[in-house]
Amino acid sequence: MLKEAIQHRADRVDAYAMNEKEFHIRLKTKKGDVEKVKLLIGDPYDWSGDSWNYTCVNMTISGSDDLFDYWFSVAEPEFKRLRYGFHLYNKKENVFFGEKGFFDTPPKDVANYFCFPYLNRADIFAAPDWVKNTVWYQIFPERFANGDQSNDPEGTKPWASEDPKVDSFFGGDLQGVIHHLDYLQELGINGIYFTPIFQATSNHKYDTIDYFEIDQHFGDKEVFRTLIDECKKRNIRVMLDAVFNHSGFFFPPFQDVLEKGEESRYKDWFHIWDFPVKTKPQPNYDTFAFTYMMPKLNTEHPEVKNYLLEAGRYWAREFNIDGWRLDVANEVDQAFWREFRKEVKVINPDLYILGEIWHDSIPWLKGDQFDAVMNYPFTNNVLRLFAKQDLSVKHFVENMTKVQHMYPENINQVTFNLIGSHDTPRILTECQEDVQRLKQIFTTLLTFYGTPCIYYGDEIGITGTQDPGCRKCMEWDPTKQNTDLREHVKQLLTLRKQEPLLANDGNLAFLPANFSEKCFGYTRTDGEDTIIVVINSSSKKETVKLPLVIGEKKVTNLRTGDGHKWKKGKIKIDAMDFVLLKIHS
Amino acid sequence: MLKEAIQHRADRVDAYAMNEKEFHIRLKTKKGDVEKVKLLIGDPYDWSGDSWNYTCVNMTISGSDDLFDYWFSVAEPEFKRLRYGFHLYNKKENVFFGEKGFFDTPPKDVANYFCFPYLNRADIFAAPDWVKNTVWYQIFPERFANGDQSNDPEGTKPWASEDPKVDSFFGGDLQGVIHHLDYLQELGINGIYFTPIFQATSNHKYDTIDYFEIDQHFGDKEVFRTLIDECKKRNIRVMLDAVFNHSGFFFPPFQDVLEKGEESRYKDWFHIWDFPVKTKPQPNYDTFAFTYMMPKLNTEHPEVKNYLLEAGRYWAREFNIDGWRLDVANEVDQAFWREFRKEVKVINPDLYILGEIWHDSIPWLKGDQFDAVMNYPFTNNVLRLFAKQDLSVKHFVENMTKVQHMYPENINQVTFNLIGSHDTPRILTECQEDVQRLKQIFTTLLTFYGTPCIYYGDEIGITGTQDPGCRKCMEWDPTKQNTDLREHVKQLLTLRKQEPLLANDGNLAFLPANFSEKCFGYTRTDGEDTIIVVINSSSKKETVKLPLVIGEKKVTNLRTGDGHKWKKGKIKIDAMDFVLLKIHS
Repeated sequence: MLKEAIQHRADRVDAYAMNEKEFHIRLKTKKGDVEKVKLLIGDPYDWSGDSWNYTCVNMTISGSDDLFDYWFSVAEPEFKRLRYGFHLYNKKENVFFGEKGFFDTPPKDVANYFCFPYLNRADIFAAPDWVKNTVWYQIFPERFANGDQSNDPEGTKPWASEDPKVDSFFGGDLQGVIHHLDYLQELGINGIYFTPIFQATSNHKYDTIDYFEIDQHFGDKEVFRTLIDECKKRNIRVMLDAVFNHSGFFFPPFQDVLEKGEESRYKDWFHIWDFPVKTKPQPNYDTFAFTYMMPKLNTEHPEVKNYLLEAGRYWAREFNIDGWRLDVANEVDQAFWREFRKEVKVINPDLYILGEIWHDSIPWLKGDQFDAVMNYPFTNNVLRLFAKQDLSVKHFVENMTKVQHMYPENINQVTFNLIGSHDTPRILTECQEDVQRLKQIFTTLLTFYGTPCIYYGDEIGITGTQDPGCRKCMEWDPTKQNTDLREHVKQLLTLRKQEPLLANDGNLAFLPANFSEKCFGYTRTDGEDTIIVVINSSSKKETVKLPLVIGEKKVTNLRTGDGHKWKKGKIKIDAMDFVLLKIHS
Repeated sequence: MLKEAIQHRADRVDAYAMNEKEFHIRLKTKKGDVEKVKLLIGDPYDWSGDSWNYTCVNMTISGSDDLFDYWFSVAEPEFKRLRYGFHLYNKKENVFFGEKGFFDTPPKDVANYFCFPYLNRADIFAAPDWVKNTVWYQIFPERFANGDQSNDPEGTKPWASEDPKVDSFFGGDLQGVIHHLDYLQELGINGIYFTPIFQATSNHKYDTIDYFEIDQHFGDKEVFRTLIDECKKRNIRVMLDAVFNHSGFFFPPFQDVLEKGEESRYKDWFHIWDFPVKTKPQPNYDTFAFTYMMPKLNTEHPEVKNYLLEAGRYWAREFNIDGWRLDVANEVDQAFWREFRKEVKVINPDLYILGEIWHDSIPWLKGDQFDAVMNYPFTNNVLRLFAKQDLSVKHFVENMTKVQHMYPENINQVTFNLIGSHDTPRILTECQEDVQRLKQIFTTLLTFYGTPCIYYGDEIGITGTQDPGCRKCMEWDPTKQNTDLREHVKQLLTLRKQEPLLANDGNLAFLPANFSEKCFGYTRTDGEDTIIVVINSSSKKETVKLPLVIGEKKVTNLRTGDGHKWKKGKIKIDAMDFVLLKIHS
């Protein structure tokens, strides 16, 4: 048995409270190396004389990637306390693995076992309940719709009259969003994520000047309140975008420092290296990336903290927003985020906190900071499979399984899955404008765990290269919209609403990566009903045999609503098409 | 190359900020499998055209255990941001390892690299500076000295007149400690850790009745203030012990619940399952272990939080204590500890927070909760080697190296190393009363990293089995003290004070586990001077060759103060003796 590959630490990902009753326990072993794992489990204080009382549970494999098998078990200890170890078997040998390493047989001393000391409710990772059933729609307000020409900035171009440049303005605003809420409701989304709407200089508004004001070209607080009200009427949640890592160059405190130097009362609001402050040739202060226009805020400074935390509280308190998306969240200190969470959750325990983090995000997802992060590993793998086509189905499943096991299941359930944003080329452009491929991407996105997000216009086939190309004006002329694509998205959204298993009541497990060369699939199950999603990524019709035994259970084809004849799991899938079956308990 | 053994995650233990300038980066590989590791490292935003700029640094092996080599490197990025990956080489192959897995060559896309997004000061793990240079002395007040017979409880036995029973009282008190502070100062310790002194029923006082009062049999607040003052005069720090996981049975709010049931205003202060409350045959409320006398406190309840946090603040604010030792710290919710840290550090940023955790403690040591935990893995391995003698020197070094690499170096520096306490048999008894073995244990304890703690009386050879045996009265009759042992401890304490490298300025690295069958050793170095500690665990004289090349450097024997002739590193060590050499830069 390959001991170097046997991995578990009683922390975060391998041992965690799923909810108030259940512990999840995971173990990694070399792929194919171990045939059976027994989990030895008991209460730390439950002894009979000299011997510790434990019970044995067989673990199951919840997934495999290229190197590892992932073993899984759920425990529901009566007294919320756990000691546990693993007894691993293969044909050649069996070993015990605990906190103090490997033993030939299960040791008597409980100190050799792993420990999860107590399931305290306060420490359970718990995103708001509504998040699991939300489908987001991301709006870049300057480009969604111009509803009020009176607030257009100087030099505004006629709507969609040209491709956007870095500094273009087309007059999009909040009133424009209000005008099109019916469109969004009809599409079937139930949450809007707005990129920043606070007073700022640029068209993207990530260079905040005033965290307490709506940008004048987008509207004012009255319009925003109407927008909120209209959204609530339609059961659409609203999430705003905040940039707390850095301010805009024209943020008055920073201007004050530029002007007064060391005499400025704001001199410690930033990280100034020395005085006088200079912006060129290199800034002598900490910045976002190397951009002198974006001075990093000193989020350890009490006044800065107060200012930013009050911004966080203000929009939650006064406008009852449902969520905060936090820009460059990974570069702000985590102590700040802990306070931020505490402060906004006092105002609204149901407020959703989403961090922008592109890489491994586990440090921020312990329950004390964010409810979710933007799931770029999802984006990356889905794009590689369907759009860039440089990833085999086998590697796709392995990569996705690896990412799934990098996070607890209660985090996976609310991860923010996106296939593109204002920061990436348009997804249809990534697909070389092949709508079939994009449809498959939407199918995956909308049948997967997590909360999916649709970047405005992707549903009607807007194209565009990297920023500024991906920020084209929304197309409102129905004759120029790809309505076939939109109907595909709409149908999937309807299905996701109809079938709670597709949203987040259903645990997700991939069908084995080698079950087909061109198709991949996964099941979503609550232990009773099961939905099977199978997607054909190739340009040829495929025949596959589903590696499932279902007995006499009734099967429905969810796309047609008709009964499906199981035929030992043999199914045919058209080129670039998919199958959606429900096995009834 | 064994990919399954190559482990790194950009979190906590493998990638962390050591201080405001330095990142530490670690990597695990199968022992002996990899010959060279290059760390590829750069600023995430530093590009030249399409290609990301990185530099290469050779990593070194900081230790090896039975399965793994641990690779190490320090980075000091100019802009406090890091992306990095590993290029691993052996004779057969070379591979790149990054966040997205393995590659044949270093990939161009920075998204494939690991990320440490920003070194924010607020997120650095930082225990108070003074802790590193502290040697603790643990006092169990009921058994240290009786300084005031007027406060003796009813039924108090004459001092040391018999072996303690579970419910014995011998009249020890705070005045007794005051009387003997000169003894402690002369011994050379500079911190006292008191087991609980608050009002309680038992002799151990872990069953708190009032968190704001000194137990009447120990003294009162006036005596305690005198004790604090007398300690400060002698530069002795004072740490108190708090039980926040559960209260004593006679804690008035619990008595109120017992009496009034559901009508009690304290009914939510505990975790009562149903009413009426019963204690037998099984309690119907959460308890510590299965002890109905110790009802678990509901530390999520605002009133309970207020009460306990105020206790934390009170003794810090009014009596200026230097530290809190937190009993059963692992079973209290971590959200509570985060608040606790914040509250007491506002009063005194230099206050030390020590958690009682016997198992893997990484969840509590991220910098947001504790400054240190009680290092029972140290205890366990040292006892197995010297006292129980069921561990070879090789396995001892491997185990210790494994534990060292389970925590960041800034955590290791302040870990609370103990060789026994009121909860374990006396260390001399564990050594089968062989004083030579105990001397070796003290030698290890007092030349190792971390802050060592001496349980009262261990320095003069008190014996005793598991509680209550280990809680005998302190022996104050000099003719009954083992003065030879005490002198040994005293000399080591003097050396530790004289040589800052022995306390915590010196990084610790074990000499290879196979360098001798019976001796083990480690170096403590600040990069300039180096101290070598070599300890002979056997009952025979040993000759070993130190695996170090030192050139023409001057070497001192620290035990004699004389020069030492290097002889290519060859040294002789008497049975159960040790060598302490200093290599001068």
